[in-house]
Amino acid sequence: MNYPNGKKSPARTSYTRNKPDFSNRGMTLEDDIAATNEYYRIANIANIHKKPTPIQIVDVHYPKRSAAVIKEAYFKQASTTDFNGVYRGRYVDFEAKETKNKTSFPLSNIHQHQIDHMKDCHQHGGICFLIVKFTVHDETYLFPAENLFSYWEGQLNGGRKSIPYLDIKEIGIVLDFHFQARVDYAKAIDKLYF
Amino acid sequence: MNYPNGKKSPARTSYTRNKPDFSNRGMTLEDDIAATNEYYRIANIANIHKKPTPIQIVDVHYPKRSAAVIKEAYFKQASTTDFNGVYRGRYVDFEAKETKNKTSFPLSNIHQHQIDHMKDCHQHGGICFLIVKFTVHDETYLFPAENLFSYWEGQLNGGRKSIPYLDIKEIGIVLDFHFQARVDYAKAIDKLYF
Repeated sequence: MNYPNGKKSPARTSYTRNKPDFSNRGMTLEDDIAATNEYYRIANIANIHKKPTPIQIVDVHYPKRSAAVIKEAYFKQASTTDFNGVYRGRYVDFEAKETKNKTSFPLSNIHQHQIDHMKDCHQHGGICFLIVKFTVHDETYLFPAENLFSYWEGQLNGGRKSIPYLDIKEIGIVLDFHFQARVDYAKAIDKLYF
Repeated sequence: MNYPNGKKSPARTSYTRNKPDFSNRGMTLEDDIAATNEYYRIANIANIHKKPTPIQIVDVHYPKRSAAVIKEAYFKQASTTDFNGVYRGRYVDFEAKETKNKTSFPLSNIHQHQIDHMKDCHQHGGICFLIVKFTVHDETYLFPAENLFSYWEGQLNGGRKSIPYLDIKEIGIVLDFHFQARVDYAKAIDKLYF
C-alpha cells in the first residue's frame, strides 16, 4: 500500500494488515472475518466493517513534502463492539473472540461496555451476536446476544463465570469454513433472524 | 478521562474530544453531531457512533508500569463514511460536511470511496445520507444519498462540480437546532424513510 504522498508504507507490524487473499487457512479469527467481510462486500452479500481501534493522539509532526507523522498517541478503550454493518436491510453488530479453553468460553473475554452496547443495539432492532472460536476444537460459533446477556446476568448474580462449550454448541450455530466465506456468519443470521 | 493504568490522560489536542456537554452552540458540525448522538443514546432514540480515524501503527513502546505509547503512526484513508449505527431497526450510514460556500456545496468535499460505500450500503437496504452545514447561512440539511448519487454521476459526465444551495434547500430536510438534539437528523429520517 502506498500513501497519498507516494511514499511506501512502513513495514508491517502486528497492528497492520494487508488485504485478505482468500487463500490461507489457519489464520486468526480476525483475519478470517476480514476475509469473509471482503468476500461479502465483493459478492454483494453484505457490507460489514471492522471499526478502527480508537487512538488518542497527543503529538503530530507535519514534515514538508511528506505525510503527517503521529509521534505520541495512546490506545483508547472502544465504546462499542468491533464489527458492524448492514445485511438484508438490518443493522448487524458483533464481537469476535477466540479461546484456547476446551470446555467453556470465559466471560472475562467480554467487557461490560460491550454488553451495554449490544443491549442498546438489540433494543433498537439490531442483530447482535458473538462469534466464538474454540481454537483447540477448530470450531467457530455464532452465539446470539440475547443468550449471552443471560449468562452475563447470571455471572453478575453469582453464577458461573463462563459459558459451557456444550451450551454454545447447542444454542449457537456452527460456522463452517468455506473457501471464500471462511466464517460464514451471514448464513447463520439467515437461520436465526429471518 | 483516566487511562486504565490510572495515569491522567494527556493534554487535549485538536484531535481529542471531551464528552459533549449539551450546552454550547456554535461548535463545529462534528461536535454538534457527537452531542446529538450522545443524546440519542441516552434518550434511547438511536445508537449511532462516529468511527475512529484509521491509523497505521509502525512503532509502539511498552514502558513498565504505564500505558503503551505509540511512537510512530500515520493516518490512513477511511474506506467508509464517518458515522453509522441503528435507528428503528434500520441501518443508518452518513457523512457530515461543512462548507463556507454560500450558493453551493462543492462535490470536492466528497470522495469516490465514500460514494461507493454509500451506494453499497444503500443497495443492502441501509439509510444513507449526507449532512451538510452551510456555515454562512447557519443552516444544516439532511441530503439523501440517492440524490447525491445523481449529482455525483452528473459531475463524472461533465456536469457541474457542486450541488446548488437551492437544490439542497428544496430536496433536503432542514435540521433545526434543539437544545439536546443539536442536529436532529432522526426526525428527518422519520419524514423521509418511514
